[in-house]
Amino acid sequence: MQGLLSQWEARCAASAALRFVDIGLRGFGQVMFQDNPLTGALFLLAIGWGALAAGAPSVLFAGILGVAVATLAAQWLRADETGIRAGLYGYNGALVGLALATFLAPGLTLYVYVALGAAVSTVATLGTASALKPFGAPALTFPFVAVTWILLLASYGFAGLHGAALPTGAVVAPLEPAASLTTGIGAYIGGVFLSIGQVFLKGSVISAILFLAGLAVSSVPAALFAFGGAVLAVVAAHLFGAETDLVTQGLLGFSPVLTAVALGVTFRRPGPHATAYAALAVVFTVVAQVAFDVALRPFAIPALTIPFILVSWMFLLPGERRA
Amino acid sequence: MQGLLSQWEARCAASAALRFVDIGLRGFGQVMFQDNPLTGALFLLAIGWGALAAGAPSVLFAGILGVAVATLAAQWLRADETGIRAGLYGYNGALVGLALATFLAPGLTLYVYVALGAAVSTVATLGTASALKPFGAPALTFPFVAVTWILLLASYGFAGLHGAALPTGAVVAPLEPAASLTTGIGAYIGGVFLSIGQVFLKGSVISAILFLAGLAVSSVPAALFAFGGAVLAVVAAHLFGAETDLVTQGLLGFSPVLTAVALGVTFRRPGPHATAYAALAVVFTVVAQVAFDVALRPFAIPALTIPFILVSWMFLLPGERRA
Amino acid sequence: MQGLLSQWEARCAASAALRFVDIGLRGFGQVMFQDNPLTGALFLLAIGWGALAAGAPSVLFAGILGVAVATLAAQWLRADETGIRAGLYGYNGALVGLALATFLAPGLTLYVYVALGAAVSTVATLGTASALKPFGAPALTFPFVAVTWILLLASYGFAGLHGAALPTGAVVAPLEPAASLTTGIGAYIGGVFLSIGQVFLKGSVISAILFLAGLAVSSVPAALFAFGGAVLAVVAAHLFGAETDLVTQGLLGFSPVLTAVALGVTFRRPGPHATAYAALAVVFTVVAQVAFDVALRPFAIPALTIPFILVSWMFLLPGERRA
Repeated sequence: MQGLLSQWEARCAASAALRFVDIGLRGFGQVMFQDNPLTGALFLLAIGWGALAAGAPSVLFAGILGVAVATLAAQWLRADETGIRAGLYGYNGALVGLALATFLAPGLTLYVYVALGAAVSTVATLGTASALKPFGAPALTFPFVAVTWILLLASYGFAGLHGAALPTGAVVAPLEPAASLTTGIGAYIGGVFLSIGQVFLKGSVISAILFLAGLAVSSVPAALFAFGGAVLAVVAAHLFGAETDLVTQGLLGFSPVLTAVALGVTFRRPGPHATAYAALAVVFTVVAQVAFDVALRPFAIPALTIPFILVSWMFLLPGERRA
Repeated sequence: MQGLLSQWEARCAASAALRFVDIGLRGFGQVMFQDNPLTGALFLLAIGWGALAAGAPSVLFAGILGVAVATLAAQWLRADETGIRAGLYGYNGALVGLALATFLAPGLTLYVYVALGAAVSTVATLGTASALKPFGAPALTFPFVAVTWILLLASYGFAGLHGAALPTGAVVAPLEPAASLTTGIGAYIGGVFLSIGQVFLKGSVISAILFLAGLAVSSVPAALFAFGGAVLAVVAAHLFGAETDLVTQGLLGFSPVLTAVALGVTFRRPGPHATAYAALAVVFTVVAQVAFDVALRPFAIPALTIPFILVSWMFLLPGERRA
Repeated sequence: MQGLLSQWEARCAASAALRFVDIGLRGFGQVMFQDNPLTGALFLLAIGWGALAAGAPSVLFAGILGVAVATLAAQWLRADETGIRAGLYGYNGALVGLALATFLAPGLTLYVYVALGAAVSTVATLGTASALKPFGAPALTFPFVAVTWILLLASYGFAGLHGAALPTGAVVAPLEPAASLTTGIGAYIGGVFLSIGQVFLKGSVISAILFLAGLAVSSVPAALFAFGGAVLAVVAAHLFGAETDLVTQGLLGFSPVLTAVALGVTFRRPGPHATAYAALAVVFTVVAQVAFDVALRPFAIPALTIPFILVSWMFLLPGERRA
């Protein structure tokens, strides 16, 4: 693996075009905190598979356009070269592209919209990093969520854009009691995998396995925490009585998966205390995911990864409290 | 009084269990900024009375569970010992318990929910303190509100929890003109006392008097500002034409009471200027209370003490501007 | 011009009353970042014309009351004398007055409301400046928006105040496809001017020309960027398919006009890079304006200048990135 990566790095050093591809791949990898082009390639494969399986190739194109425009914007704005090379100015743009193409119908205006959103996501990444500097907190996917929410909300006021898969607006009301379901354990195991796939808005088990493989080639602990976070999220959501469909489709688990990797591996020294702390955060991220799904009903937009962002900030802000 | 407190302190020094009780009582006291176990005991008595009078003993149990779990979480996270001893990591957990048990139906899941919320409230207290450090602003009850809002919103998506007293969702619309009421002065005087009781979500005049007594044993100025804030809030709300029921039940006065004590006594040097400044803040807190009651209608959750928090931060951020 | 201003300054130096008038005029000028009493006088003329043309003289009175009370509050709170003299503690109060009188029916309670809001806007200006100090970002019109939103929301709960021109609450829903319109180019040119007029909530072309003149006597580049921003906003909004009425009435252009001046002239060294950066920000401000118009539907309040504020902060936070 290391040999392969060294060879690739040597080629990138000799070619500006390959370097740009490398940065783009790392951008996809950074969605799950991995600065690794092979991880990115596997993630891109997973996205491509999921997009084609869902009959939505525009999602793949929009993701690639997003990462490319966001990276070009970072170069234009002279962001720090190290960060650019690590894909840190690409992952929000990639997610903007994936999300816009998932929720809005394809067309020329969509791609203009993706390019605008991706460019602004880079400004937002620089701005968020500045704003969070005094607190030592990372930007996470906040630029993606802020920019995508604005673009999705505005789509309701623009005749040039059509919501293809946006939720329907409604005031908050008590849950319709779900019919007693005889869903087998298999559906819940599927929910664990789909929780990982939904990090990239993909509802495919094969994609999920590719995402896990992509994580594992870069960091086995990250893959383990992603999987463990998904299991805990599915169990906690089920025990609180969340809607079975949401649980088994992974729609309550993707934010907790990110929380698990962020707090268990990426931003904290791994160990028993960090694991227990991450577990508390994962359970609360499940609650927050349901809360934001409810709170955003009047606005008819999806919560995206805001539960992960807010809970992770809340749990990171106190700083490292013990070894 | 001092003799009593010294005796108590001596016993706590000798017993870990009594120390834990002492910290819990101070946690209740800190809801109104008092680091005093006797204040906390009187507050707890008031809560118990109000809970039993309302036929809801689960509220008392949940409040105690909240303060205990929040304190244990602070010890696990190695928060500063001085802060723990003063009850500063307990009051948000106490309020989480009181609020969840007030708005949700009792049951096992409720207590799991309270324990989860109380533990997370401690993380949020540490996180909020970190975030506000550069600004020299106190966390106030923000951790309580943030955590409780998320838990209450999520309850709409969990079959395991039922809203017992949550508001009904609706888009914002003009007020139905209230029928001309012949409410006597007595109802308004009751509203003044209930404004103090509602700080702890209690609609009992006897509880309110116990709360005032609890304040007075620790700080007579705090008791006077609490009472004065309640009077000013009831008068201002009535003059602007707020709904009579809301005014006389103290539902527009509890945030202003907290603002009055915070700005008039706790965080500012008392004096004529601080009093005038606090009075302006109290009147604006009344407006903000009505505003948040309106703004939260689509979400079907209560405003809790967010008007107090936001207005107090706004008025504290400029710093002490004159003697 | 300079001679006129010198003469005026000499008279103000000799008279406390004239100095107060001077500060008030500069307060109006600061709405568009100009520390110039002549600019302020022309802006006030434009406001007066617009108010009378719309049959709403209360708007003019409320604007003057707002700037006066906000300035007095700044003196009472001993804000920095340089800032007071430059009108930096007046413009938010002026806007509070203009907005409240635009959206609420006239009457005694309205003026009490304006005075309360203006005084609190000064506290909010001091508080926002403190909060933003670590980030080197300006307060912009955030104090105005925060205070006005709270006052407008609360008006739904106060019988003493009536919404005269507030929007109607509704959950978010897809846009009704606008009937194919044969609007001529003239209406769009009108939309460019009204985009400038709407910065002060004025839908009059004559007012818009007076605003432009007021800008030009202080800074020709500011006038050019205001005009250019309005043109770009109208074109972008139209191309995305925004509702024609909103575009031609300038309702999607006033926030972008402010963004253009702030990012192109006031807070950045002017030049080709700043212009390109400002253009990106202007287009995104159009999107954000539509987004907030949509997002605020459930609350039945107007977006005011929040799109300008949030987008400008996002674009200012990264700091000056190249010459």
